[in-house]
Amino acid sequence: MILVNGQASESIPALDRGLAYGDGVFRTMRTRSGAVLLWPQHYRKLHADCNRLGIECPGERELFADVERIAASEPDCVLKLIVTRGPGGRGYAAPADGIPTRVAASFPLPSARPGCDEQGVRVSWCSTRLGDQPALAGVKHLNRLENVLARNEWSDPDIAEGLMRDDTGRVIAGTMSNVFILEADRLVTPALERCGVAGVQRSRILALADSLGVRSSIEPVPPHRMLAADQVYLTNSVIGAWWVAALEARTWRRCDLTPALLAALECP
Amino acid sequence: MILVNGQASESIPALDRGLAYGDGVFRTMRTRSGAVLLWPQHYRKLHADCNRLGIECPGERELFADVERIAASEPDCVLKLIVTRGPGGRGYAAPADGIPTRVAASFPLPSARPGCDEQGVRVSWCSTRLGDQPALAGVKHLNRLENVLARNEWSDPDIAEGLMRDDTGRVIAGTMSNVFILEADRLVTPALERCGVAGVQRSRILALADSLGVRSSIEPVPPHRMLAADQVYLTNSVIGAWWVAALEARTWRRCDLTPALLAALECP
Repeated sequence: MILVNGQASESIPALDRGLAYGDGVFRTMRTRSGAVLLWPQHYRKLHADCNRLGIECPGERELFADVERIAASEPDCVLKLIVTRGPGGRGYAAPADGIPTRVAASFPLPSARPGCDEQGVRVSWCSTRLGDQPALAGVKHLNRLENVLARNEWSDPDIAEGLMRDDTGRVIAGTMSNVFILEADRLVTPALERCGVAGVQRSRILALADSLGVRSSIEPVPPHRMLAADQVYLTNSVIGAWWVAALEARTWRRCDLTPALLAALECP
Repeated sequence: MILVNGQASESIPALDRGLAYGDGVFRTMRTRSGAVLLWPQHYRKLHADCNRLGIECPGERELFADVERIAASEPDCVLKLIVTRGPGGRGYAAPADGIPTRVAASFPLPSARPGCDEQGVRVSWCSTRLGDQPALAGVKHLNRLENVLARNEWSDPDIAEGLMRDDTGRVIAGTMSNVFILEADRLVTPALERCGVAGVQRSRILALADSLGVRSSIEPVPPHRMLAADQVYLTNSVIGAWWVAALEARTWRRCDLTPALLAALECP
């Protein structure tokens, strides 16, 4: 099911600035038994991201009506919500009277990775780097060619995710996930001031860590630090969290803490 | 007039990857008296840009049929041509069997800047920097949020263009144009290996320079070098070339060479 500005539709205006310039933001959520998981967090992030681009975010009530209709029709799905700056003429200047375009769409849940909780996932390094751009860092905007290039570096279905580094070689994120490393009793996630997307699940883990009895912090993570970690996790709002069993030649066994951590990260 | 995959239409698929990720490229051209100016150069660049992203560029005959129809209906217009990777499910991985989407659209010519040839244009510095991304540098792709942010830094209609620098402060381009500086009898344009768009008009000037009796080269252009230049030009396929009369407090008078240069850059 697809809703465009609240109406069932398969199409958007050909002159929308979302197409012309990637001038918009998006969210990827889950519905479960007809409920939109973590909606308040997703709306807050969408609103903040719109602000970063100077787009007037549609009201929560209006957007919630869209996602609720999707969830009613697809009780257990992946729900994607896009907000663009709306239709516009040619030229980079944003029209003064622009009306944002809303697109809400359902997708099938990704096929489960059987035994993933026990066995973990395999990941590899991407050679495509994330460029530094502080003006856009952290925002989940529609300019995602770096992720597309990185994701298309591998086709082996046994590789669940690719890791991306910044200009200086520090680990920033997976192509579609945030990264945490566990060092003894401490969770560390990379700083995202210069590139990367600060996901809702990442914020949630930082907030939840205390209650799990683990300290957490945001710090630079060079590859050698990741390779020396006791465990590595990949997180987003659809997968929840995966633990990494193998990063190319480096392998890990499941830490004692991991089942509790993964359980805590399950969406309510 | 808008053609989507060769059919008159106002809309594109809501799940097109051009919207989802900015996963595509574009060209902005001119029609004059029903002819598409510099078509061979534009097609060559479009094809090269598609290759950079791993998109299979539609054939020249197919695309030319689109732009010819636009030019027949709008003999003197700005003609924008977009090619995306096409519709796709969710997820960054490009579908193996994707069929690119073509969008060709006409727009009114920008209102002339009266006396621009004699008086030149005023420009200013943008604070938004162009991030380094060698994997995408030079390509006119649909990830243009940096340009949108930069263009929205000013609203004064007397400012014709804004200049963008890279991370290190070097001048790279205008928000919608390439930059040349004239140093005595030599034209210099910034290197674009790490960011910026290598426009058709820029290539044309580099090829034409010889015939105008000026040497040309591609080199780093820090701001002090631009300020010390004898003349500064901004180029693209719609404006041809402008000479800069004022960059904030720095002003220039028209060089003797400038009328000949501007005349040579007029499209055939």
